[in-house]
Amino acid sequence: MKPLGIKNQQLLLLDQRLLPTQVEYLTCENWQSVAQAITAMVVRGAPAIGAAAAYGLAMAATSLQAAAPAQFAAGLQEAAAGLQAARPTAVNLAWAVKRMLNVARASTRLDAKDIAARLWQEADKIATEDVAVNKKIGEYGAALIPAQAHILTHCNAGALATVGYGTALGVIRSAVAQGKMIAVYADETRPYLQGARLTAWEMVQEQIPVTVIADSMAGFLMKQGKVDLIIVGADRIAANGDAANKIGTYTLAVLAKAHKIPFYVAAPASTFDLSLTDGEQIPIEERDERELIFFAGTRIAPEGVLCYNPAFDITPAELITAIITEYGVIERPTAAAIAAVLGEKI
Amino acid sequence: MKPLGIKNQQLLLLDQRLLPTQVEYLTCENWQSVAQAITAMVVRGAPAIGAAAAYGLAMAATSLQAAAPAQFAAGLQEAAAGLQAARPTAVNLAWAVKRMLNVARASTRLDAKDIAARLWQEADKIATEDVAVNKKIGEYGAALIPAQAHILTHCNAGALATVGYGTALGVIRSAVAQGKMIAVYADETRPYLQGARLTAWEMVQEQIPVTVIADSMAGFLMKQGKVDLIIVGADRIAANGDAANKIGTYTLAVLAKAHKIPFYVAAPASTFDLSLTDGEQIPIEERDERELIFFAGTRIAPEGVLCYNPAFDITPAELITAIITEYGVIERPTAAAIAAVLGEKI
Repeated sequence: MKPLGIKNQQLLLLDQRLLPTQVEYLTCENWQSVAQAITAMVVRGAPAIGAAAAYGLAMAATSLQAAAPAQFAAGLQEAAAGLQAARPTAVNLAWAVKRMLNVARASTRLDAKDIAARLWQEADKIATEDVAVNKKIGEYGAALIPAQAHILTHCNAGALATVGYGTALGVIRSAVAQGKMIAVYADETRPYLQGARLTAWEMVQEQIPVTVIADSMAGFLMKQGKVDLIIVGADRIAANGDAANKIGTYTLAVLAKAHKIPFYVAAPASTFDLSLTDGEQIPIEERDERELIFFAGTRIAPEGVLCYNPAFDITPAELITAIITEYGVIERPTAAAIAAVLGEKI
Repeated sequence: MKPLGIKNQQLLLLDQRLLPTQVEYLTCENWQSVAQAITAMVVRGAPAIGAAAAYGLAMAATSLQAAAPAQFAAGLQEAAAGLQAARPTAVNLAWAVKRMLNVARASTRLDAKDIAARLWQEADKIATEDVAVNKKIGEYGAALIPAQAHILTHCNAGALATVGYGTALGVIRSAVAQGKMIAVYADETRPYLQGARLTAWEMVQEQIPVTVIADSMAGFLMKQGKVDLIIVGADRIAANGDAANKIGTYTLAVLAKAHKIPFYVAAPASTFDLSLTDGEQIPIEERDERELIFFAGTRIAPEGVLCYNPAFDITPAELITAIITEYGVIERPTAAAIAAVLGEKI
C-alpha cells in the first residue's frame, strides 16, 4: 500500500485515481511529470505530495548534473517553482521544496553530481521521516481514543496521503494496535471520493470495520449518537490553529460542536504555516467543474449549469478540540498553545 | 416538464433516473408497475408519489370493474396496501391512498365500473389540486424572499417532485415571476443526485441561474456569506413541526443556525402527519447499499465495506424558521402554531 517508490532514480506513484478497482503505478521520468501527477491527483494528500515533490527535485538535479553551476541553480529553481505551483493549498509541498533547496544551497561547494546525490539522500530522508512522524502522531493520538469508539473521518488522511501509515488513519491504526475496538465511518468525500475509494480500501486491507456514508449523512449519524469522535488530517494550519482541509471538514466541525463530539486534527509539524496569522490567508484551490458535472464519463448535471468546486475549506481553531502532532497534542489550539508544543521545532 | 401524465387509462411516468441526459416516459399498465416505479424512484418526491399512487388505485379499480363487490373491495385494498408500502417515509403516499379509499367507500352503492370512474376523477382532482396548492405555497413563500437572494436548496422539491410547479422550487419560481433577482445553489444530493440531475435541470430550463455544489460545500458557502436563505421540501412533518426530508437536510439546518441564515420548509398540508407527536416516530427508509458502492456501473467503494444509506433525516422544529403551506406560513413551528394555521383543514 505504498503510495510512492523509487526505481532507477525514477518516481513510481500509485495511481490513486484508479483505486479501489485497479492497483497501478505510474512512472515519472522527470520533475515535470511529477508536477503533472500532483496536479492531476495521481498522488494526493499533503505529506505525500511533499515527498513526491522532493523526489521531483532530486530527479531535476540528476538531469542537470552536467550543467555549469549557474545553469544548475537556475534549472533547480525552475523545477522548484513548477513543483510548488502544482497545487496551492497544502503547505507541505512548499515545505519540502524549501527544505530541498536549502540542502542544495548548503552544498554549492560540491559539483552538480554530488549535489544531486545529496538531494536524493534528502528526499529519502523526507520520506523516511514522514513514516516515523506519522507513527509518533499515531502514538499521541491513540491516547485520546477510548477503548471502544466509532470514529468518523473525512477524505483520506491515511497511508495513501502520506509516505505510509497516515495521520488521521495512523491514529486509528495505533489505537487498533493497542487493542482498542474501533469502527470507522468514512465520508465518501465528493467529488473525488477519497473516502469511499481510498480510506475504505485502506481499512478493508487492515480488516478494520469501515462503513461508507454519503457526506450528507454525517449530521444524522451524530444526532443518533453513533459517532464518538471525529478525526481528520490537514493541508495547512495557520499560526492561530485555523486548519485547511478537504472541503466538508468545516461542516463536520460545526456539526461536532452542535453534538458535543470531540473534533481532532492530526497533522505533522510540516503542515503548520506560521507565516499566516489565520486561516483567511490560506489559498483555497478551486478545481475543474468537470469533477462535479461528470462521473466516470457520465454526465450528471445538465448543460447550462454553473459549478463551484473548492477543494478545501477552513475550520476555525475554536472548533478544533486538539491538533495531534509528532511533538505532542495541542489542546484547544491557539497561537500560544501551538508555540508551546512546537516551540523552535519548526 | 410534467413528471406524470395519463394516456388510455395508463400512467406515464417521466423516468427521473435518466435525467438530465434522457427524457423518456415509462408506461405503467397496472398498480403493481406503479408501485415498482415508486420503489425504484422512476418517480420520486412526496407529492408526486402521492399522485402516482392515486392513479395506481384508479387503474386497479378499472381492472376490477367486472368483479363482485366483495372481490372489488378486496382487490382495491390489496392495491392500496401494495402502493402504500412502496416507500415508507413520505406520508403523502398514505394520504393519497387514504383519500382514494374514502371515495371508494363513499361509493359502495354504485357498481364497480362507476366506482372506477369516480376514482379516476379523484386521482385527476389530486393531481390538479397539487399544482394549485404549489402555486399557493409559491405565493406565500415568495413574500419571504428578499428582492435579491442567493438561495440554497437540497434534493429536488420542484415540478418533478410534484405534479407540477414544485414546493421549494415553486417558491423560487414565484419569487422570480415577481421580478426578484434569484440565484440558486443546488446541493448535488448524494447518492441519488436529485440536485445535480433534477433541480439543476429544472432551473436551467427556466433560465434561473443555478450553481451545483457537492453537499459538503454548503457549510463553506455559508461561512463565506454566500447564502441568504435555505429552502427545502419535506416528506413528512410531525404534529410538533419536526420534518423528515432528504438525507442531508438536518445538516443544512444545523449549519443555517450556526450562520444565522433563515431555514424554510415548503410543503403542502398533505405532508403533515398529526398522528405523530414528534419526528422520532417518522419511519426512515434505508435504501440499497449499492447506491453508495456503485456509480453508473463503476465500483467506487471496495469489496468488504459496510454501507449505511438512510434516504431521509429529521430536522427538529426548533431549527426551522418557518414552514410554508398553502394555508399560510407557520413561523417558528410548534404544535400550537401548526394548529393555528392548518386548523380543521387536515
